[in-house]
Formats: sequence, C-alpha cells, structure tokens
Amino acid sequence: MQNFSQIIVHHEGPIAFITLNRPEKMNAFTVIMMHEICDAMDILDHDDNVRAIIFTGNGRAFCAGADLTPQDDGQIFASGSEVASLSDERVRDSGGKLTLRLFQSKKPLIAAINGAAVGIGATMTLAMDIRLASDNAKFGFVFARRGIVPEAASSWFLPRLVGMQQALTWCMTGRVFNADEAYKGRLVQDIYPADNLLDEAREIALEIADNCAPVSVAMTRAMLWRLSSQEHPMEAHKMDSRAIYRRSRSNDAKEGIASFLEKREANYPDKVSEDLPDFFPWWKEPNYE
Amino acid sequence: MQNFSQIIVHHEGPIAFITLNRPEKMNAFTVIMMHEICDAMDILDHDDNVRAIIFTGNGRAFCAGADLTPQDDGQIFASGSEVASLSDERVRDSGGKLTLRLFQSKKPLIAAINGAAVGIGATMTLAMDIRLASDNAKFGFVFARRGIVPEAASSWFLPRLVGMQQALTWCMTGRVFNADEAYKGRLVQDIYPADNLLDEAREIALEIADNCAPVSVAMTRAMLWRLSSQEHPMEAHKMDSRAIYRRSRSNDAKEGIASFLEKREANYPDKVSEDLPDFFPWWKEPNYE
Amino acid sequence: MQNFSQIIVHHEGPIAFITLNRPEKMNAFTVIMMHEICDAMDILDHDDNVRAIIFTGNGRAFCAGADLTPQDDGQIFASGSEVASLSDERVRDSGGKLTLRLFQSKKPLIAAINGAAVGIGATMTLAMDIRLASDNAKFGFVFARRGIVPEAASSWFLPRLVGMQQALTWCMTGRVFNADEAYKGRLVQDIYPADNLLDEAREIALEIADNCAPVSVAMTRAMLWRLSSQEHPMEAHKMDSRAIYRRSRSNDAKEGIASFLEKREANYPDKVSEDLPDFFPWWKEPNYE
Repeated sequence: MQNFSQIIVHHEGPIAFITLNRPEKMNAFTVIMMHEICDAMDILDHDDNVRAIIFTGNGRAFCAGADLTPQDDGQIFASGSEVASLSDERVRDSGGKLTLRLFQSKKPLIAAINGAAVGIGATMTLAMDIRLASDNAKFGFVFARRGIVPEAASSWFLPRLVGMQQALTWCMTGRVFNADEAYKGRLVQDIYPADNLLDEAREIALEIADNCAPVSVAMTRAMLWRLSSQEHPMEAHKMDSRAIYRRSRSNDAKEGIASFLEKREANYPDKVSEDLPDFFPWWKEPNYE
Repeated sequence: MQNFSQIIVHHEGPIAFITLNRPEKMNAFTVIMMHEICDAMDILDHDDNVRAIIFTGNGRAFCAGADLTPQDDGQIFASGSEVASLSDERVRDSGGKLTLRLFQSKKPLIAAINGAAVGIGATMTLAMDIRLASDNAKFGFVFARRGIVPEAASSWFLPRLVGMQQALTWCMTGRVFNADEAYKGRLVQDIYPADNLLDEAREIALEIADNCAPVSVAMTRAMLWRLSSQEHPMEAHKMDSRAIYRRSRSNDAKEGIASFLEKREANYPDKVSEDLPDFFPWWKEPNYE
Repeated sequence: MQNFSQIIVHHEGPIAFITLNRPEKMNAFTVIMMHEICDAMDILDHDDNVRAIIFTGNGRAFCAGADLTPQDDGQIFASGSEVASLSDERVRDSGGKLTLRLFQSKKPLIAAINGAAVGIGATMTLAMDIRLASDNAKFGFVFARRGIVPEAASSWFLPRLVGMQQALTWCMTGRVFNADEAYKGRLVQDIYPADNLLDEAREIALEIADNCAPVSVAMTRAMLWRLSSQEHPMEAHKMDSRAIYRRSRSNDAKEGIASFLEKREANYPDKVSEDLPDFFPWWKEPNYE
C-alpha cells in the first residue's frame, strides 16, 4: 500500500479502513487529503479482498472541516489568480472531486463518525452509503455561516438522505448539531457509545462481506444511487432486466441459491475486478464543464 | 371474473382483493402469477365498481420470493438459450413487468402484508401506494445474498419511499428484517396484530372509497408518482392547472363542494372508465428497449 | 409598504411577517390574496433588511382553503368561458402561481401554521422552507374529497418533503389530520403550544439572520431546491464549484472566517440585491405552456 501522509489505510480481513489522520488539526481537510483518499479508493476498488470500506477519524474528531490556515486556504478556497472561464478545471471544488469519486465506488462505504464532522467533514460522508455516529459526534453544514455555500455536491446528496425540509433547515441555519438531532433527522443510521462505534461499523461491514456477492453489492450500489434519479421506472426496469438476466446465469447466482437451500454460508466465485457484466457501467460519466 | 390458478380475486363492496394463492409454496412468485395479477389489474381498472384494491397472501406468507424450483427457475431466472441483444423482450424481468403494470393502476393499491415478503414479495409492494404489515411480517431485499441484484425497478421505487440511506442499508446487506424495522424505516405505513390487518386495510380502502371522487383518485395517483420525478415544479403546475381547470368544471366538483357545504356524504357521478380528462394520460409510456 | 387588503406585512428587525388576513373567512384563499402575496414577495426580496419571512394567519386559522363562495369561485375554480387551448395563460392554477413564486424566493420562508391549513392552505406552505405548527393545527390535502386534484404543484413538492407513501396516503384519502400526524409524517419540522408558535418561528428566523450571510442563504435555498432534482451529482458539482470559487473570494467569506476564528458575531457586507454571483440565476425559468 502506498505511503500516505494525511490518511492511514489498514486492512482487517475483508474490511479496509481509511482513517483521516491529522489529529492535531482535528483532521482538517486539505487538497492533499482529497488526493490521498481518491488514490486509496482506486487501490481498494481494484482489490478483490476488500469487501467494504470504513471511514473514520484519528483522535477526537472525524473531520472538523477545510483547513483554513494560510497554506491550505490557498489551495482549497482561493487559488489566487483569476481563471478565464468558470468551466476551467481549476475552479472545481475539492470536496466535490472527492464525493464524485466516492459516488463511483464499487465497494460499500460506511462512515464511522467518531467526533466533529463539520463542513466538508459532514458533506464528504453524504456520498457514503451508511453513516453511524458516536454519541459525542457533532455535525454542521456551516457554509452559510462562513459566507460560502454547501459544496461537495451536497445539494444533490443531502435531500436524498434526509428530505428537503431537514436539508434546508440544516443548510440555511448553518447550525452545529449533536448526534441525536442527526439521528432524528435521518442523517445517521444509528448512534452508539464512542467505545462501540468501530465495532458496530465492523458488524455492518461483515454483514455485507459475509453474506453478499461482491459483484451484486457493487451493482446494487450503482443501481440505487443512479437509477432512482431517473424520471421513469422504465429506466430501472431496462437496467435491472439486463442485470438479472446476466447475474442469474452467473456462478454467483448458482452459489447464492445453493447455499440458501443448503442453509450454509455462501462462497461467491465472481470478482468485482473481472466479473461485472459487459454493460457495466451502463452510464456515461459526465464531464465537468 | 376470469378463473385464476395462482391468485384469488374477490370483491367486498367497492373493494377488490387480490390474494396470492400458493399457500403451500408460501405464495412463491411465478411467471404465471405475474400474468394473472396483470390480467386481474386490467379487469379491475375497467370496473367502475372497484374503488380500491387490497393485495394480501393466502396462508402464513405474503410472498416468499421467486419460486426457485426448476420448473419456474427456467422461466424467471434463466430462459436457457442466449438472446442476440439485451433489448430483446425476453430479457425483461418478470417482477418489473408487474411493478410497471401496478405503476399504471387507476385504482389505489394497498398491500396488506400478512407474513414473509421477501425478494419479489417485497419489491412488488413498492409500486403499491400504501403498505400495512402484520406484526409478524418479515421483509428482505435479499438479492445480493443470492448473487443477483434488486429487480422489479426497485432501485427506482425504494429510495422514493424510504430515502437513500435506508434503501442502501437493506439492499447492500440483503438482511431479513421484521415489521418494526420496516416501520421505523418507513417502508410500511403502520403495523397491526395479524388478526386486525385486513380490517385495517379495509378501513383505509373505505376511507378512500367513501369520501373521494374516483376520477380524482386515479389522477392523484398518477400525478404524485409521475410529476414528483420531474426536474422543475413547472411540470407539475402545467399538468395540475389543466387538471384543476377540467375537474373544477366537472359534476364531481359540484357534488364535492355541495356535499361539503351540506355536510353530507358525496355521491360522485364521474366514472374512471369514461370521465378522465381528454389529456389523460398526458405522458407517453416508454418502451422497453 | 404597499397597502394590502387580504394580507398584512410587518417587520420586526430582520424578519418580515406576511399574515393572511381574512379572519372572518378563516383566511380563505382568493386570487386577490395570491396577487398580494406575490407583490409582497417582490418587495421583500428586494429589501436587504429582510433576512427571513414568516407566514402565519390572523385569527384561529392559517388558511382554510380556497374561498368557495360565488364571487371567488368564479375566479379560482372556473372562469366561465372555455379557452381555446389548455396552454392558455388563463388556465393556470392560482395556487401554482403562488408556489412557483415562493420557489423563486431569495429569502428563507418559514410557515408558522397557527390553525387549519387545508387545501391551498396546506399546499402553499410546501414551497416554503420550514413548517412549524401549533398543537391545534389541522391539515388536509382534501382535493379528492372535492372532486378535484392536488394543485399548486404539490405533486412535485409534497413527496420531496414527506416521501411518496405519506404523500399518497394523505392525497388519496383526502383526510384532515392533526399536528401530531403532520409531525410524525415529517410535514412539519416541529410542534409547539399555540402561544409559543410565533416565538419559535422568530427564533429560527433569527438563527438564520444572526449567523448566516444573506447571499449564502439565497444561494443555498436555490441550490438545494433545484440541484437535488438533477439526475447526476455532477450538475451540483458544476454549480457549487462556481459558487465556492466566487464566494470564497468574497468579502463575506473573509468576514465569515475572521468572525469564526475571532469567536465573534459576523457582520456580512454583501447584499442579496447587488452581490449575487454573475451566474445567478444559473437556470432558465421554464414558461407555462
């Protein structure tokens, strides 16, 4: 595994952990951290031993937001010279580069939010699949309190998770709120005592890894995020018909049905790196412009 | 009423019941059952005496999933010979054929989920309008545990009902969960003791049938499902302006207002079979391709 | 401020109140009221001293629905003569004209629902950002009980707020329901004793006004409502990248970060009337046709 400076990647059986690792800065987000997470995702997406990825933070914070100290402010908030066009690649928000990469993940992503998750620390988790929080976690979509706006494509992600009223309430007040409010508002799937958080995240990761075919999980993730945003259910029917057709002939399906009928653990042969159906991805990823 | 082999259709006043009827197989889904439900829907949609449709299962299950025994596996999961193109009509998923038919229903659809609703047994209910569960019901979007993927256009329907995080959690873990989790996750509108389930379903069906104009109900159903998926509220405004314009001049509107002012039960004259506005349907149904 | 006949507009510091004011008619909605609210919105949107708008009703109702008495019925429900085409501007639903105007608001909109909110009284609040209710409030999407259909683009707004199942349940039964059901169904963000309702609405309005940059709030509102309805998060990334790029160079951002680091209240210099970025609005408002 590549050597990273602002994250730690480690493996426990089928689970990979990406730990944000600037504890002395409450894991404040930088462009370097963004690139390191994207690089780690590229590695983990290609590693068939990795069946789920847990994100957490080193120390008492998950991620307290973008690093506002001068050296990083230059990179994240203001690159100095003016671009000729707003479609210039250099205009792109770092947070959005990260969430769009997470959106493309072939592995399930679980956020184990162990403390403050503020600004990009909150919005980066929206492109993950399941958010769990420790009971001392704090959240804030604080952008309007800093004179900026919600970033990282959070205007797209957040209402899909919590509904429009809750999304507007949090983003227009910019308030910092605790884990109870996050749970009540359906931002996090569950809350645990801080000491149990990682164990609970592991348990869900293993629930997926121990029971589900990895190719099926990769496809399920892509299908739910992408097909639910189509206008008509026919788009979902077109794609899931193809997927059922191909997958029902797979060795995974034989093993899935056999193991179910024999009441034993399944041992799926297909690999995400090699055995995704020929039409996957079925979409064309749009360019920034 | 046509004679069905795997469902029972019966009428109680303005309510029609479609009962899945393979109790010895936990009402496992087959292609025959799919066709019978679609045929029954065609009949009930044209019958102006039918004001609401309740789906339930005979015996202890609602529907335990696709029948995996060889005779049916051939039809549902794998038709044997390979098609030349994935846009071949034979590739189409049976579950999706069913949910797209339910999506087009002109009558309100209520699922009275009396026991296990797993796989297609769960996803077929997503295109219905209201799901009620008995306290011993079980649910599972178990596709990833069988090596396949969510079908029946459920990647489109499920996030609209329960939000993206809950949909991902259930589909990526493939877990079987109980009625409490289904209720907490907003999949079912309410839970009742098994003995009361059908009475409660009847009560909601009658709440619609006794109070609401059938043409209004048919249009409301189509408007909510279809217009909420448009990008801009202007699309809804265009259509509901036309609908209000036509319906406010209808005999139903006269009766609706008169009965309201006179505090008496309404007796709506318009029929779904004849009196839908000239622009209904306003949409062009897309083809499988 | 213009003199209005069916609404009262007053100011308390940074908060403007729009009070529906036909208490003897339970604030029943008329075409005049619609025009007055739209005119008031035009004034308040241009007034930089206004940082949030609270809607409430005078007397015991919020708004009991469209005025069904003959003088108004003619205007709202039926204009008498038949139009040549349904794309005629005169076909347009008054409720939808109102909600589309609210949708374009540059100020946060808070509904303080102090009593009955039925028909257009309920649907007009859906285009607002936050709904609070008194414990004696009543709600009803009663259209199907009057022989008409949901209007005011509510088929677009309501499922975004409460999910599809709850939206269908309320609109297909047409039932009148209390504040508890509205809260449980996530239509209102919170419930308060009637005597506290306005104070609680003020508190949220001030939470926004005291802490957030007005330009950021205007943009946040537009971004969440509009970008969440796009198919792909890239659309959000395109727009929020531009917005972060411009706003991070603004005097508001300097003040937002400085006040945060200095732990003092912010005093944002940018004005909604003058300082929205050059690409705002980035969308083309569609026409009725």
